[in-house]
Amino acid sequence: MKVITFGEIMARFSPEGYKKFVQADRFEINYGGAEANVAVALSSFGIETEFVTKLPDNEIAKAAVNKLRSFDVGTKHIAAGGKRIGTYFFEKGFDARQSKVIYDRENSAISQAEINEFDWDKIFEGADWFHFTGITPSLSGNCTEICLKAVKKAKEKGIIVSCDINYRKKLWSIGKANEVLTELMPYVDICINPLGMFGATADGKISVIDSKSTEKLKEINSDLIKKFRFKKTAYLLRDDINSNLSKLSAAYYDGTDYYFSKEQTVNIIDRVGGGDAFSAGLIYSLLNNYDGQKTVDYATSSSCLKHSVEGDFLTATADEVNSYLNGTVKIER
Amino acid sequence: MKVITFGEIMARFSPEGYKKFVQADRFEINYGGAEANVAVALSSFGIETEFVTKLPDNEIAKAAVNKLRSFDVGTKHIAAGGKRIGTYFFEKGFDARQSKVIYDRENSAISQAEINEFDWDKIFEGADWFHFTGITPSLSGNCTEICLKAVKKAKEKGIIVSCDINYRKKLWSIGKANEVLTELMPYVDICINPLGMFGATADGKISVIDSKSTEKLKEINSDLIKKFRFKKTAYLLRDDINSNLSKLSAAYYDGTDYYFSKEQTVNIIDRVGGGDAFSAGLIYSLLNNYDGQKTVDYATSSSCLKHSVEGDFLTATADEVNSYLNGTVKIER
Amino acid sequence: MKVITFGEIMARFSPEGYKKFVQADRFEINYGGAEANVAVALSSFGIETEFVTKLPDNEIAKAAVNKLRSFDVGTKHIAAGGKRIGTYFFEKGFDARQSKVIYDRENSAISQAEINEFDWDKIFEGADWFHFTGITPSLSGNCTEICLKAVKKAKEKGIIVSCDINYRKKLWSIGKANEVLTELMPYVDICINPLGMFGATADGKISVIDSKSTEKLKEINSDLIKKFRFKKTAYLLRDDINSNLSKLSAAYYDGTDYYFSKEQTVNIIDRVGGGDAFSAGLIYSLLNNYDGQKTVDYATSSSCLKHSVEGDFLTATADEVNSYLNGTVKIER
Amino acid sequence: MKVITFGEIMARFSPEGYKKFVQADRFEINYGGAEANVAVALSSFGIETEFVTKLPDNEIAKAAVNKLRSFDVGTKHIAAGGKRIGTYFFEKGFDARQSKVIYDRENSAISQAEINEFDWDKIFEGADWFHFTGITPSLSGNCTEICLKAVKKAKEKGIIVSCDINYRKKLWSIGKANEVLTELMPYVDICINPLGMFGATADGKISVIDSKSTEKLKEINSDLIKKFRFKKTAYLLRDDINSNLSKLSAAYYDGTDYYFSKEQTVNIIDRVGGGDAFSAGLIYSLLNNYDGQKTVDYATSSSCLKHSVEGDFLTATADEVNSYLNGTVKIER
Amino acid sequence: MKVITFGEIMARFSPEGYKKFVQADRFEINYGGAEANVAVALSSFGIETEFVTKLPDNEIAKAAVNKLRSFDVGTKHIAAGGKRIGTYFFEKGFDARQSKVIYDRENSAISQAEINEFDWDKIFEGADWFHFTGITPSLSGNCTEICLKAVKKAKEKGIIVSCDINYRKKLWSIGKANEVLTELMPYVDICINPLGMFGATADGKISVIDSKSTEKLKEINSDLIKKFRFKKTAYLLRDDINSNLSKLSAAYYDGTDYYFSKEQTVNIIDRVGGGDAFSAGLIYSLLNNYDGQKTVDYATSSSCLKHSVEGDFLTATADEVNSYLNGTVKIER
Amino acid sequence: MKVITFGEIMARFSPEGYKKFVQADRFEINYGGAEANVAVALSSFGIETEFVTKLPDNEIAKAAVNKLRSFDVGTKHIAAGGKRIGTYFFEKGFDARQSKVIYDRENSAISQAEINEFDWDKIFEGADWFHFTGITPSLSGNCTEICLKAVKKAKEKGIIVSCDINYRKKLWSIGKANEVLTELMPYVDICINPLGMFGATADGKISVIDSKSTEKLKEINSDLIKKFRFKKTAYLLRDDINSNLSKLSAAYYDGTDYYFSKEQTVNIIDRVGGGDAFSAGLIYSLLNNYDGQKTVDYATSSSCLKHSVEGDFLTATADEVNSYLNGTVKIER
Repeated sequence: MKVITFGEIMARFSPEGYKKFVQADRFEINYGGAEANVAVALSSFGIETEFVTKLPDNEIAKAAVNKLRSFDVGTKHIAAGGKRIGTYFFEKGFDARQSKVIYDRENSAISQAEINEFDWDKIFEGADWFHFTGITPSLSGNCTEICLKAVKKAKEKGIIVSCDINYRKKLWSIGKANEVLTELMPYVDICINPLGMFGATADGKISVIDSKSTEKLKEINSDLIKKFRFKKTAYLLRDDINSNLSKLSAAYYDGTDYYFSKEQTVNIIDRVGGGDAFSAGLIYSLLNNYDGQKTVDYATSSSCLKHSVEGDFLTATADEVNSYLNGTVKIER
Repeated sequence: MKVITFGEIMARFSPEGYKKFVQADRFEINYGGAEANVAVALSSFGIETEFVTKLPDNEIAKAAVNKLRSFDVGTKHIAAGGKRIGTYFFEKGFDARQSKVIYDRENSAISQAEINEFDWDKIFEGADWFHFTGITPSLSGNCTEICLKAVKKAKEKGIIVSCDINYRKKLWSIGKANEVLTELMPYVDICINPLGMFGATADGKISVIDSKSTEKLKEINSDLIKKFRFKKTAYLLRDDINSNLSKLSAAYYDGTDYYFSKEQTVNIIDRVGGGDAFSAGLIYSLLNNYDGQKTVDYATSSSCLKHSVEGDFLTATADEVNSYLNGTVKIER
Repeated sequence: MKVITFGEIMARFSPEGYKKFVQADRFEINYGGAEANVAVALSSFGIETEFVTKLPDNEIAKAAVNKLRSFDVGTKHIAAGGKRIGTYFFEKGFDARQSKVIYDRENSAISQAEINEFDWDKIFEGADWFHFTGITPSLSGNCTEICLKAVKKAKEKGIIVSCDINYRKKLWSIGKANEVLTELMPYVDICINPLGMFGATADGKISVIDSKSTEKLKEINSDLIKKFRFKKTAYLLRDDINSNLSKLSAAYYDGTDYYFSKEQTVNIIDRVGGGDAFSAGLIYSLLNNYDGQKTVDYATSSSCLKHSVEGDFLTATADEVNSYLNGTVKIER
Repeated sequence: MKVITFGEIMARFSPEGYKKFVQADRFEINYGGAEANVAVALSSFGIETEFVTKLPDNEIAKAAVNKLRSFDVGTKHIAAGGKRIGTYFFEKGFDARQSKVIYDRENSAISQAEINEFDWDKIFEGADWFHFTGITPSLSGNCTEICLKAVKKAKEKGIIVSCDINYRKKLWSIGKANEVLTELMPYVDICINPLGMFGATADGKISVIDSKSTEKLKEINSDLIKKFRFKKTAYLLRDDINSNLSKLSAAYYDGTDYYFSKEQTVNIIDRVGGGDAFSAGLIYSLLNNYDGQKTVDYATSSSCLKHSVEGDFLTATADEVNSYLNGTVKIER
Repeated sequence: MKVITFGEIMARFSPEGYKKFVQADRFEINYGGAEANVAVALSSFGIETEFVTKLPDNEIAKAAVNKLRSFDVGTKHIAAGGKRIGTYFFEKGFDARQSKVIYDRENSAISQAEINEFDWDKIFEGADWFHFTGITPSLSGNCTEICLKAVKKAKEKGIIVSCDINYRKKLWSIGKANEVLTELMPYVDICINPLGMFGATADGKISVIDSKSTEKLKEINSDLIKKFRFKKTAYLLRDDINSNLSKLSAAYYDGTDYYFSKEQTVNIIDRVGGGDAFSAGLIYSLLNNYDGQKTVDYATSSSCLKHSVEGDFLTATADEVNSYLNGTVKIER
Repeated sequence: MKVITFGEIMARFSPEGYKKFVQADRFEINYGGAEANVAVALSSFGIETEFVTKLPDNEIAKAAVNKLRSFDVGTKHIAAGGKRIGTYFFEKGFDARQSKVIYDRENSAISQAEINEFDWDKIFEGADWFHFTGITPSLSGNCTEICLKAVKKAKEKGIIVSCDINYRKKLWSIGKANEVLTELMPYVDICINPLGMFGATADGKISVIDSKSTEKLKEINSDLIKKFRFKKTAYLLRDDINSNLSKLSAAYYDGTDYYFSKEQTVNIIDRVGGGDAFSAGLIYSLLNNYDGQKTVDYATSSSCLKHSVEGDFLTATADEVNSYLNGTVKIER
């Protein structure tokens, strides 16, 4: 089984511990980006992966590639060139002090990539699954074109396509996102987190699993299924208590039935990549033909577990996700 | 609007993370002191400030001044000379393990300052507000004299005077404090945290806002108002659960009515300066003519937010305090 | 009063903060082992102690000895020689992510020590108490023999013997443990944590103090007392909520009556050595002739407090344990 | 005396110690840029300074401003806006392993500043000196225009103008630099390091002060003086032995005579900003009316001393430069 | 071109900076071992590599594999199992204070590997070169057998075999080494550093290239060539001045002629792996058909450059080695 | 053999690496003081030692005691009480940038100790040697008295007394030092470094061993011997090249003959305690009855080696000093 993901990987600079930007003399560097995060998590679960992007020829970009490779993610289809690797600055919040993200990703190599820099026939050789998120088409018109070409080619080859909508208002307006993503959706088999996009909105926020919100969610989902003919959909719901504490739950629709995880309260050491770990858990479950309930539980546990790991990457084995799912907390010695 | 604060700034040495003194090979250095903390917080809120003290001519003291200046606090009235900068050692507690403070501030430059080293006419040029705490007069007889001269001069010039009683039993006895502060109070417009001083004590501790304690608080406050003719008073109440968790609430009397904040449960990353952030929040609110409820809420939020920031200083904008007040916790991206 | 403990001290390598093994470029080094931990805690409480082991002639072992000596533990009976100091790797868990221990202690100097390397007559000069745990005899046949010789000699000299069963399934099978420990128990006066050994098992886990489990515990204890004629027994019960949170309680049988601590919820900064701090608290209480209730409370508080200190060692004074016991959490300043 | 400098300040990320980019998990952050460095050094020498630039409204930029302010550099004319602060990555070389610089400064706020964002009449109020380097006009056409406007205004107001040519081939071609700088030179009084520009080249590299090279240098200098009517010129010559060791010397022409420093061998802890410290030393000497020999010696010592300080900034007092100049190396205690 | 190396990779723990073991609370972890080091250097030069060993199933071993993979070394033939990864402790010397190495590598997984755990037919598929060092056969009788099997198979398949004698007296006696290595040499094409082994000793130490020592070296080399029919030999000579400074030079015999590098004085940041970088440089040169002089120069430069990089690995491109060889030391910017 | 030393131990705060005070957010803490340093070095050489001082009852002082004990220095005669432990700040110089020391040791516990707090009869039980330096009497009049009492008692008991003059101009004037030390000298058997005191000055500085300076030194020494009847004297001469490099040499007069070490050029990682290591080396040599040449060589090597170790303490075995003396620099592995 082999999964291809396509998008941007950035260098992330974050002050040590809970220092604020204005207090920090040292920054930890991590590398991450939605689709890279999915690739690393899947690779940690034991799935063969390739991450596709474009990176400039400098040693910060090289360090990003090295890091991916260290977690056994394939990097041989990464295009070389461009001027810079996207970066972002991340300040961890504490309690009611919010986390802060400063993006500095404009003009990154991938955002300026040309459509003919990626040979999808070659990239998709032996692949079973293609995953991207709404962030990739948001980066530039070229990136939108490349995504479109990729999903068409995937469709053509019978490769499953999943997309995490992942709307970021610092990257594009909701209107523009709607327009672009609507063009891509017909090629998507499995849509993750479409809430808020495509008119899929409730009166209030749907952030927990209760009878009222599940009813509403089912209604919204029905409309989406009608519109785009997704084979499956999944929703990660988060109810943030403070910067260190969230409640997570999820819904999964397998094309016929709905499955809901139970709500998990998670202490947070690093929330970045929590949604990507959900996508990875979902893909892993489907590749393993887990049943609907196990699927939503595994995906949710994967996301929960990510919140306990520093950096953007979930580097946990499938055994560790299952151990979380089963509630084990003792040290073995 | 310009606020002058006067007191001691110390170098604080604290083991990294939650290490104990006897475990630590590295110490983080921060600079702080009640009145310096108020100046930094006000400056972060956008108010022009000057911090007045005396510091020796060495590079540790210079680093303290640099740090103040980095947060845009004016330092041009700091007197030069003396032998040492006061220092203190701070070990962060964890859960039921208590935090520890070892003061090494005797014979500091400010404690040995002479009355004629400060030209209050010049210092108060263009100033609207003067703030000090009970710590400053506790440092030495000279410091008491200097405070007295300063508040008299402020009074003369129509500058508002606020004082945070801030009683520290490691610095002076309650009897001595009472005697000295009683002499200063007639010049104070706004008195913060007088509980426990001037006979202002209840049978039990007043640490939460409930009907019984608010009644008691009002009674006590009436007596104080009668005695010292304060224009306004404010009380920060804290109920410490353990070293990482407190409940905070506050009362504010605007000369006519009482206003109470709701109780906030705060996770603590660094509790030092929590009271000073309350004073800063109060001063800021009054400079902005906030109404009574907004005043007590802003001051309390300012204090709560401080507990989530490392070091003695609250370096948060007024927007960040308001965002706390409004309960926002999402990352924007 | 002088306490001798005998066992293994290891070098422990743990990633900084909450990093995972695969993320860490720097490791903190601590030294610890069940009996060394008991010695350090007792020494911190003010008791004269000697720790007996065997260590190779290299600077990592020397650093371990230096560390013990820094906490005033006597080291003059440590045998010299052998090839290596045992090591282990410890990854701190966070929330539902489990802590991980990788032992690398085989072939350590102590595990290969010979019976004649320890002159117990000399070691026990002036001693009042001898403590070891089930880990020591598990290390090798020789270690079992040495333990047997030590406890017999202690018995002969009227020295009190305590043993914490401390079963570790990574070290030996339950069957082997049973067989070996059964041989040692007749020489033990005070047995700590025998649950799970010697057939002392309930239907379900006994991890909290409630009426049902105390009944069961008393039953089990009666059987053990009959079998081994222990003078006293003690049980530390832990109910782990997640990697950062446990509930602790304890039971103590003084030969006549049962005493139960109240349940404490503890936030955990480092759980290693929590059981050893319980043993140290128990020994300290008995050396001070505390009454039964104070004994179980002090021992439990000692264990709780350990959870708030980094490393394997509890370096807290008896005053600090009592301050915990009394629930004080304010900073004094 | 007041000096204005104008240019870019960047965030610099460098691996701790001598780690390579691909080895580093932590980066130290420093702030610097040629003209900011000159301002900080002058401020440390006791001169009033203002640094003019444009910076975006984010906390990394804010941290840069805070850092400048901590060293008492005026920041009140910094224009606000734009998308990003320029950044660069710096890997310290060791021995024959070269240092590496990766620039990521395109599209920085200052490079996209508009000509009307700087009110030079206001900026130059009370100013005696204006300094910029060849880097500033290289950033964009707008920056060239702004420089031109600034130097014309300075001329008009009788403010001394100095320019360090500071050619960087990663920023622009030698041809383009020549063309642009030639337009600016007529407004420059004191030109620093014009070697290699304006046809000012020798057959070989002029990197040491010997009879042959001084002859050549005088010849070249004569041509430049004729061409641009500079009042004074100065040349910092460096002969790099390896990444940790250089030989520095300098020449200074005061409009009439030549002065040469003696050659200094310097061990290097951080070479960035060495040229800027030379400029600052030169400006300081001229503001103090030092004689020609003292001028070239002070400027050279200032540069040498910079090589012993981490980061881009020379934070040394004039006393410390003089103590270097006089060769004192003992600790006083 | 593909190179296979076979041996042990260890976790190395070294105090930060120049701290001594007894001073260190934090250790940096690096991974390395002679043959792994050669693989990483070759991979950095752009050669396809596979490193073969046996490692246990734990996360410290996993981190070692991740690190290799991050530098693009193939790890798919690493056998799984065994009890522990070998470790060693390394204290960096300073000036005349010597560096210290404490090995703790006994009973490592590779030392206890069985002969049938490596399928050399499969491992050698597509391979052009096989490299090992004298350390591997020293680890155990099994390891000797495995080496013998590997070199015979390589011979059979026409794969070039190189061996760095790399004698370590902490691992085996000179007599035993002689006996074992004599058995392996007939299968070795290129022998590196045989001085001191096989009776190849001079009266004094041969550590520099001068006329007397080159004569002696040629004599010794002739004997070795006669004895073992090596196709080529190479000698890295080091003259250690102190812990931070060495003089390196090398000799290379291409089967016909002798080539000598010039002597290089190197400042040392980490000397571990300096010999392995020489081997990697030699192999790279021969794979690229460099002439004799370029070969010895490149290999020497590669070794020199290693001394400027922290850890066991040389992570430098061939361009960087050549830049060293050409003496470039400027920063480009 | 047992050596008693008496003086002050301070907490030293130094920025990490080569950061300047104004750059540092983290400080390393070390403990040291002239006589404590001598005790630690002697203890590392294998001599039984006791360090006598007075320290307050707080955890910073406790950490100092723990550190001494970790290096096996006896601490049981340390008087308890007083207000503070002396501290000092140390900024490491680099190249021509000087190191800086800021003392903050006034009013330390030892400086305010009373004469009857030390029971010298008890302290000197079993002692063979008493060592102090000129720093101790400089601390206060009481300290002078205590020293006088101690040396008289030592004399009475036939204990050898050594004193390192160790003049520090930040502590007292040369006149006062002369007066006080002249009173103490009659009780001193072995005087170290009297140059500059007691009129023992040359025309120029005596910092190297050459024929001219040795003649002068002998002359000066003769006068001192006549004056105070010292049994032996020793002189450590240092010629500082820059902050990282010194030349050290020494002279020793055994009462009959002069012995000179050869000059050693030392790279410096931490120069503090270099003189104390010389004293320790001298005492060790005399306790071991080394001959005159070995004595001066061992003492000099001990001092040289200290310069390669971080902190105030030389923690090296006698074997390591001898290995330095013999010029060994290879790693053994």
